[in-house]
Amino acid sequence: MKKDLDRLMQERGIDVAVVRGVVKGNSTMFYIVNGAKMSHALVIKKRGEDPILLVGSMEREEAEESGLKTVDTAKYDYRKIMKDVGGDKIKAAVRYYETIFTEFGVTGNVAFYGQAGVGPNWVLLKALEEGIPGLNVMGEYDDDIFINARMTKDTDEVARIREVGKLTCETVQHLVDFVKSHELKGDTLVKSDGSPLTIGDCKCEIRLALAGRKLIEEVDTIFAIGRDAGIPHSRGNDPDPIQVGKTIVFDIFPQEQGGGYFFDFTRTFVVGEASKEILDTYAQLEECFDTVYAELKANEWGGRYQQMTCDIFERFGHETIRQNPQVRNGYVHGLGHGLGLDVHEKPRLSDFPGVKDVLEPGSVFTFEPGLYYPDKGGFGMRIEDVCYVTESNEIENLTNFPRDLVIEM
Amino acid sequence: MKKDLDRLMQERGIDVAVVRGVVKGNSTMFYIVNGAKMSHALVIKKRGEDPILLVGSMEREEAEESGLKTVDTAKYDYRKIMKDVGGDKIKAAVRYYETIFTEFGVTGNVAFYGQAGVGPNWVLLKALEEGIPGLNVMGEYDDDIFINARMTKDTDEVARIREVGKLTCETVQHLVDFVKSHELKGDTLVKSDGSPLTIGDCKCEIRLALAGRKLIEEVDTIFAIGRDAGIPHSRGNDPDPIQVGKTIVFDIFPQEQGGGYFFDFTRTFVVGEASKEILDTYAQLEECFDTVYAELKANEWGGRYQQMTCDIFERFGHETIRQNPQVRNGYVHGLGHGLGLDVHEKPRLSDFPGVKDVLEPGSVFTFEPGLYYPDKGGFGMRIEDVCYVTESNEIENLTNFPRDLVIEM
Repeated sequence: MKKDLDRLMQERGIDVAVVRGVVKGNSTMFYIVNGAKMSHALVIKKRGEDPILLVGSMEREEAEESGLKTVDTAKYDYRKIMKDVGGDKIKAAVRYYETIFTEFGVTGNVAFYGQAGVGPNWVLLKALEEGIPGLNVMGEYDDDIFINARMTKDTDEVARIREVGKLTCETVQHLVDFVKSHELKGDTLVKSDGSPLTIGDCKCEIRLALAGRKLIEEVDTIFAIGRDAGIPHSRGNDPDPIQVGKTIVFDIFPQEQGGGYFFDFTRTFVVGEASKEILDTYAQLEECFDTVYAELKANEWGGRYQQMTCDIFERFGHETIRQNPQVRNGYVHGLGHGLGLDVHEKPRLSDFPGVKDVLEPGSVFTFEPGLYYPDKGGFGMRIEDVCYVTESNEIENLTNFPRDLVIEM
Repeated sequence: MKKDLDRLMQERGIDVAVVRGVVKGNSTMFYIVNGAKMSHALVIKKRGEDPILLVGSMEREEAEESGLKTVDTAKYDYRKIMKDVGGDKIKAAVRYYETIFTEFGVTGNVAFYGQAGVGPNWVLLKALEEGIPGLNVMGEYDDDIFINARMTKDTDEVARIREVGKLTCETVQHLVDFVKSHELKGDTLVKSDGSPLTIGDCKCEIRLALAGRKLIEEVDTIFAIGRDAGIPHSRGNDPDPIQVGKTIVFDIFPQEQGGGYFFDFTRTFVVGEASKEILDTYAQLEECFDTVYAELKANEWGGRYQQMTCDIFERFGHETIRQNPQVRNGYVHGLGHGLGLDVHEKPRLSDFPGVKDVLEPGSVFTFEPGLYYPDKGGFGMRIEDVCYVTESNEIENLTNFPRDLVIEM
């Protein structure tokens, strides 16, 4: 939570955190400016003090929504600085930052955060390191203070994720009803004009349903059928028809409009009738889901549940990523991940070397075992719910949707 | 255009360009992988050679859509590397990159591009610079080879922007019809239940219209009324009612679904009846628009048109950004910007120190004078069209929409 930032800065010897870059797609910036809708910003947070938001004149009203102390950057007159340094952009940037850093006492161990262009960021930080005396430019490679603060959510954040979850489940139900409203012709669903209902048609319906609920699809929804369903990140192929008996993996991760909190949800569907092979595999998936889910406990290492999942799947005879990092048929990914302003954050339910994340109270994470047979069988399946570890150490499931595999026609 | 990359690398002494990071929101990556829909990727482009795409197993099928030679990164076995270096993530990253760079002969002047986390990028590039012999880590601060290559568009790119433009104009017309379908009650538009039609209602209708056309709103559309219309980047306030006589600035910049090319469009509307002050100011804006537009020529410096715009507005008695960089009432921004995989790219129609962009054939740019009186008058207005400089040096307007100010009820 945000209140953890000062402690984390203290532990890591960081005097000042500087967040830079665009706001959209920059979850660290979004977090520190409380979702205020500017395009670009610079935030200075000294340890033990409130953050200060520096922003251009044109976005002064948006900046006020942050609730932070704001400074209009027009007063630094970048145009004049550019003239003073003879038009050298890098020198101008150093002069600009130096002016601001002097005004706000930014010195010592200064760590930089946010999202930015790889080249410009490299050149800028090198120039600041060389050009501003007393400034020790720092970066955190991984697991930074914001990622750690964000690992646990406060009540408002959980309420927002819960609401996106409710709207996500509505959207999925809407799509199931949409599919059911079509007729079968042979083993293909058809529209009123007799042409096949396609993956593309379903995705269009999903987008309309999301837009009507003030949600966005930040990255393409996964709605993949048959063999594509067997490749976990395949998003599905628009022209493919919806056919009886094939698995459809529907993995949807809507975000609040304008950037904000995500949900993440997967169900697997088969229209009409499923083969014995698919039904049997799905039964194993559900058994694994329920067995491991029942073991989830607050303050445990997330990797433990990945290992339990591998144990169970291997016992059923499926190859797992633990046995073969390049596995393509079997259980091929991690069990889950934190969810918030990014679709993938901490805590990770992974036994990957170095991952030590535990399921602290306040954590919100996905739980998503799956089995994939793109080559042998041409199918795939995954079930994904979102869990919240309450302040009283209980595991609450934020996903309220049945797991029925077959959509009966 | 992409074919310019080798020449630009040669001119700047770059042996290898390395593009890294996520694909979504990373226009450089999108450009080099031809829009292939992966989540993360690493691209190596040696001068004079085709780019090579390195991607995880799970996204191998998406990667193939790039048309590039692809390499599955599973073979580098990051898990084993992590064990070998005792779990040190930075050492592991250096070993990982070193293995790849050795295999593909990445050495000498190696410039890095893309979008990434500010801290991780700083730490990674510093570690690579120190840890890999023969590697000269470079970055371009501004105006990099990709930004320059992208400044001119090939026929396919222009066709895509043109199509987004057509769908954008349809969306705007849909919204005008939507507004007109409401009744007036006093000076406020009302819905069938008698409650006021709001900015939020209009934005919801815009999003549905975009979703139905396979377009997305990457950043919130600007639909701002009255005083908010006088603040160029104000996106509008959802609960505000649509009222007679106030200016509405409608600035919409949809993007192809899944990331891709943008359009950018602004019209100003007044419902019912406009005051003499607004009508007179709008007439001046139109006069300025038409006068400067008529002067646009291929291969001219874009800043020239910003200066002409300031000349005209100052003659009419409006304060301009040329006179006062902190101006809030008058003409407060640049005249336009290139448009493509980013909403704002080159060429810029700006006389800001150091901006030397010319309107080369293949350029696609916005042309958007505006006048803003948030404090004196509480209104604002802007007209924005998109122009294309054809290969035969003609200026083609890609925006086909009338400029009528008043929506008659």
